[in-house]
Amino acid sequence: MRTRWIFSIGMLGAVSIPAAAQSADQVRDKVRAYREANAASIVQEFVELLAIPNVASDRPNIERNARQILAMMARRGITGQLLEVDGAPPSIYGELKTPGATKTIVIYAHYDGQPVDRSQWTGDPWTPVLRSRSLAEGGEIVPLTGSGQRFDPENRIYARSASDDKAPIIGVLAALDALKAAGLPPSVNLKLFFEGEEEAGSDHLRAILEKYKDLLAADLWIFCDGPVHQSRRPQIVFGVRGVIGLQLTIYGPARPLHSGHYGNWAPNPNAMMVNLLASMRDEEGKILVANYYDDVRPLTASERAAFASIPPVEPQLEGELRLGRTESAPQSLAERISQPALNIGGLRGGQAGAWGANVIVTRSEAYVDLRLVPDQTPERVQGLVERHIGARGYTIVRTDPDSATLRNHPRVIKLIWSGGYPSVRASMDGAGAKALLRTVDAALGRPAIRLPTLGGSLPLYHFAEVLRTPLVTLPIANHDNNQHAENENLRLKNLWDAIEIYGGVLARLGREWTAVP
Amino acid sequence: MRTRWIFSIGMLGAVSIPAAAQSADQVRDKVRAYREANAASIVQEFVELLAIPNVASDRPNIERNARQILAMMARRGITGQLLEVDGAPPSIYGELKTPGATKTIVIYAHYDGQPVDRSQWTGDPWTPVLRSRSLAEGGEIVPLTGSGQRFDPENRIYARSASDDKAPIIGVLAALDALKAAGLPPSVNLKLFFEGEEEAGSDHLRAILEKYKDLLAADLWIFCDGPVHQSRRPQIVFGVRGVIGLQLTIYGPARPLHSGHYGNWAPNPNAMMVNLLASMRDEEGKILVANYYDDVRPLTASERAAFASIPPVEPQLEGELRLGRTESAPQSLAERISQPALNIGGLRGGQAGAWGANVIVTRSEAYVDLRLVPDQTPERVQGLVERHIGARGYTIVRTDPDSATLRNHPRVIKLIWSGGYPSVRASMDGAGAKALLRTVDAALGRPAIRLPTLGGSLPLYHFAEVLRTPLVTLPIANHDNNQHAENENLRLKNLWDAIEIYGGVLARLGREWTAVP
Repeated sequence: MRTRWIFSIGMLGAVSIPAAAQSADQVRDKVRAYREANAASIVQEFVELLAIPNVASDRPNIERNARQILAMMARRGITGQLLEVDGAPPSIYGELKTPGATKTIVIYAHYDGQPVDRSQWTGDPWTPVLRSRSLAEGGEIVPLTGSGQRFDPENRIYARSASDDKAPIIGVLAALDALKAAGLPPSVNLKLFFEGEEEAGSDHLRAILEKYKDLLAADLWIFCDGPVHQSRRPQIVFGVRGVIGLQLTIYGPARPLHSGHYGNWAPNPNAMMVNLLASMRDEEGKILVANYYDDVRPLTASERAAFASIPPVEPQLEGELRLGRTESAPQSLAERISQPALNIGGLRGGQAGAWGANVIVTRSEAYVDLRLVPDQTPERVQGLVERHIGARGYTIVRTDPDSATLRNHPRVIKLIWSGGYPSVRASMDGAGAKALLRTVDAALGRPAIRLPTLGGSLPLYHFAEVLRTPLVTLPIANHDNNQHAENENLRLKNLWDAIEIYGGVLARLGREWTAVP
Repeated sequence: MRTRWIFSIGMLGAVSIPAAAQSADQVRDKVRAYREANAASIVQEFVELLAIPNVASDRPNIERNARQILAMMARRGITGQLLEVDGAPPSIYGELKTPGATKTIVIYAHYDGQPVDRSQWTGDPWTPVLRSRSLAEGGEIVPLTGSGQRFDPENRIYARSASDDKAPIIGVLAALDALKAAGLPPSVNLKLFFEGEEEAGSDHLRAILEKYKDLLAADLWIFCDGPVHQSRRPQIVFGVRGVIGLQLTIYGPARPLHSGHYGNWAPNPNAMMVNLLASMRDEEGKILVANYYDDVRPLTASERAAFASIPPVEPQLEGELRLGRTESAPQSLAERISQPALNIGGLRGGQAGAWGANVIVTRSEAYVDLRLVPDQTPERVQGLVERHIGARGYTIVRTDPDSATLRNHPRVIKLIWSGGYPSVRASMDGAGAKALLRTVDAALGRPAIRLPTLGGSLPLYHFAEVLRTPLVTLPIANHDNNQHAENENLRLKNLWDAIEIYGGVLARLGREWTAVP
C-alpha cells in the first residue's frame, strides 16, 4: 500500500496556518502521529525503491531508479526533471515552491550505490528485508504484513543503499506527506537534487552543476549523506577536509650494494627518505613545512564551542584500537581532524622483518596523503611541499630519471601528485546555519551535535565553487550501517528521526531564519 | 704430472744458506723460474683438487677433499692431521718447523665452497676448465696438454672454489716446492690451517680453535681469503668491521584506519618510524645515538697514511652506480668504511607507489644493520641503541605485544637483534705486521696496497679472542672472480703472483721480523 496524498503548490497555500501556532513540539507530534499511523506504507515505498539495482555503471537500472523517483515525486505533486550531461547517470531535480517563502533550500542525496560483492552478503543486496535488529546482534527477518503493521524502532532494513543514500529520499518525501496530512505548509521553497553517480566518483557532477546553475540557485544546501554520530545523536556537519596524495621515490645506487663494503659511502635512499619525511612531520602530527599553516583559517568561537560540546568518543575508540596515546593529546579527535594532516600511508624500501638484508637498496618509496582545511588549496600545498623538498637539496622529477640525471644531481626525487581538491567549511555563524541549528534542535527536543568538519574528504568544493551557496551536512543513517560494505542496513529509528527532522526543518526553518533574533 | 720433491724438516736444515744471500729479487727470480718450468704440474694438481665437490654439507665429498689435501701435504713431507669436533667438517692442520726460526706463522684458507646453482653455470662447477680469458671477455676453453705446457697469465681456471678458497692451498704448497727446488729454506715455522665449513657459517670454528688452541699457537695468522684490490694490485688487509642486525617493529592502531577520519589523532607508526630512524642517523651517515663513537679507536698515523695511498676507485664506482654524491664526501670509500655505519636495509609499512592508500597502518617495520669498528662491542652498541630508543619514550618488547601492553604504554617497539660480533683490526705498527709489509713489498717489487680494514664483516674475532694472535688478510684472488656465484674463476696471473708472494714471505719474513730496524 502506498501513500496517496497529493501535494500541489496551490493546495499548500490553501492550508497555510499562522506561524505562531506551529511550535516545534506541535510539528513533531503531528509528524510522529502521521509516521506511526503510516509506518507500513512508508516502509513499503522504501522497499520498492531499494529493490531496484543502483550501481552507477548499470545504466538501465539507474534509469529505472530515476523513473521510480520521478513517479514518487509526481505522486506528491512535485514536478521533477532529469538533469543530464553526456555520458553520465542523470541527477534528479524536483521543486516545490511555497507562497510567501523567502528562503530556498536544496536537499541533496544520491540514489546510486556502491558495487556489491554478492558472496559477502547474507541475502540479496536488492531484495530488501526487515530484520529485528542488526545481524551482528542476531537479528532475524521480520515479515512485512502490510497496512497497520507496527515496528520495533530497532528493526533494520537490509539492502544496498538502505542507508547510503536512498534513506534521505524516502525520509523527505514522507515528511512532506506528514506535513500535508497535518495541514502544515512548508516554510521554505524546497528543491530536491538526487545525484546518480556519487559512488562512482561524481565525475560529471561539476558539469551538471554548471549546466543547471540557475535552476539550482538556493540559500542553503542540506547535504544528506553519511552517518550520525557514534553516540546515535543526530549531528550537523559544516565541512569536510580536502585531500591530495603524493607518491615519493628517492633513488640510491644503480644496483643493490653490500652494506659492509659500501655502507656510509654510497647514499642510502631509505636513510634519505626517513630524514626527509621526519623533516616534514613530527610524531605529534605537526607539519614542519615552512609556511604550511599560514593560510589555515582560525577556528571561530562557535567552532571551538562546538568541539567542546561533542560527546567524547575517545575513551571507547582508544580501547578498541588499543592505543596507548594519541597525537597532540589532550586535543579531542574532532578538534584534531579540523587541522591539516600529513599521513604517511606507506613506506617501501627493501625487506624488513626476518627477510631484512644487509644491503643498500636502489630506491625507497613512500606514499603520503595531505588533508587540507580552509583556506588551504592543493596548489599552494604542492608548492610549499616542493619548496621544502627542494630546499633540502632534491632535484624533483616526474618520471624515473635517466643515468645522466642521477649522475648530475646529488639528490633526485620523483614526486607524483594525485587527486587534489580543497576543503569546504560553512560558517556556523551565518543566519541560515544558525536557523537550521535552532530548527533541528527544536525538532529533536535536544541539541544536535555540531561538527565543524569531518576529518574525511568529499568533493563538496564543486558546490561551493560553482554555486557559491553555504552547504551543511545533515546525515541520518546509523553509524553502524555497513556503509560501502556487505549487509548495508538502516535502523528504522534513524528513518523515523529523519522524518521528524525533515518535517521540522520544512515547517519551521523559513520562519526561524527570517525571525528577528 | 705432479711435483715430487719431498720436504722434511731435517732436509731443510741441510740446505740452509746464509741470510744475506737471499735478497727479495733473488728469491722472486728463483720462485718464478720454478713456477714457469712447472706451470703444467701446478695447474694439474690444482685441477685435481677442484674436481672434488666441496659443499660443507656434502660430508663424503668434504672428507675426500680432506684426504686429498692431507696427501698433498704428505708429498711435501708435511705431517698433517684433521682437527675435529662433533658434527662439523674437519679442519686440516699441517706443520713445518724450520731449524733456527723464532717466529711462527699460520696460513689460513678454507677448502669448502659455496653451494651451486648448476642451471646458472656455463659448465659443471666441479669439472674444472681452463679458459683463454674471462667468460665476460669471450674466453674459450684452453686444452690442458700436460708437462711443459705454457700458459697466458690471463687464462682463467673455472670451477667452484678456484678462487674461494682453494687457490691459497695450491699456492702455498707450490711456493714450498719452489723454495725446495731453489735450495732456499723457510725463515719461519709454518703452520697450515684449512677450514672446512667457512661457507656454511663457521659454526664450529670457535670450538675447533678452543680445542686445538695450543697446536695453533703462532706469532701471526695470515688469512688468505677474498679478492685483491680492484686495481689488481695485491693488498694486505688488517681488519674487518663487525656487524649486528636489528629488526624494528612499531605498533599503530589495532586495525587500519581511514587517514581522514583519524589522521593526526591516532598515532601513525610510519611517522614514528621515520622520526625514530632519522633521530639515529643523518643523511651523511653520521650516527646520532649518544656516546656512540666513544669507544671508536682513533685511526693511527699508519692507517691514515694507508688510506691516502690507496688508488682511487671512487670515480669509476660513482659512474657505474650512477651516484650524484657520496656520503660525507670527500672522504674516500676506504676511509668511510673504517668508521661505524648504520644502514637502513629495509622499510615496510603499508603500500607505496600506485598502491598507496589513505590509511593509518597498524605497524611499521624496519631492518637495520650496524657495522662495528674497534673497540665497539655488540653488547655496548645494543645498549646504546636501546637507551636511545628508550629515551624517546619507547617501551621495548621482544615479541608482539598483547593488548594490555599496547594500551598501557604510549609507544611500544619490538626489537630483535641478530648475528652480532665485533670488529677485528690488527695494528699496522706491530713488528710482525711491519715485517710482513716489507717482505710482501719486496717480493712484489712495489708496495702492496695497505687496507686498514674491509668494510664487510667476517667472524675473525674468534681468532682474536681465542688465540690472541695478530691476524692480517692477504688475499690472492682476482676481484672479478664471481665469488659465491656461478662461473667462479681464478686468473692464472693471480696464482702466479700468489706463489711469488708466499715464496718471498716464507723465505724472508723471519729475517725481516727479527732484523734490527
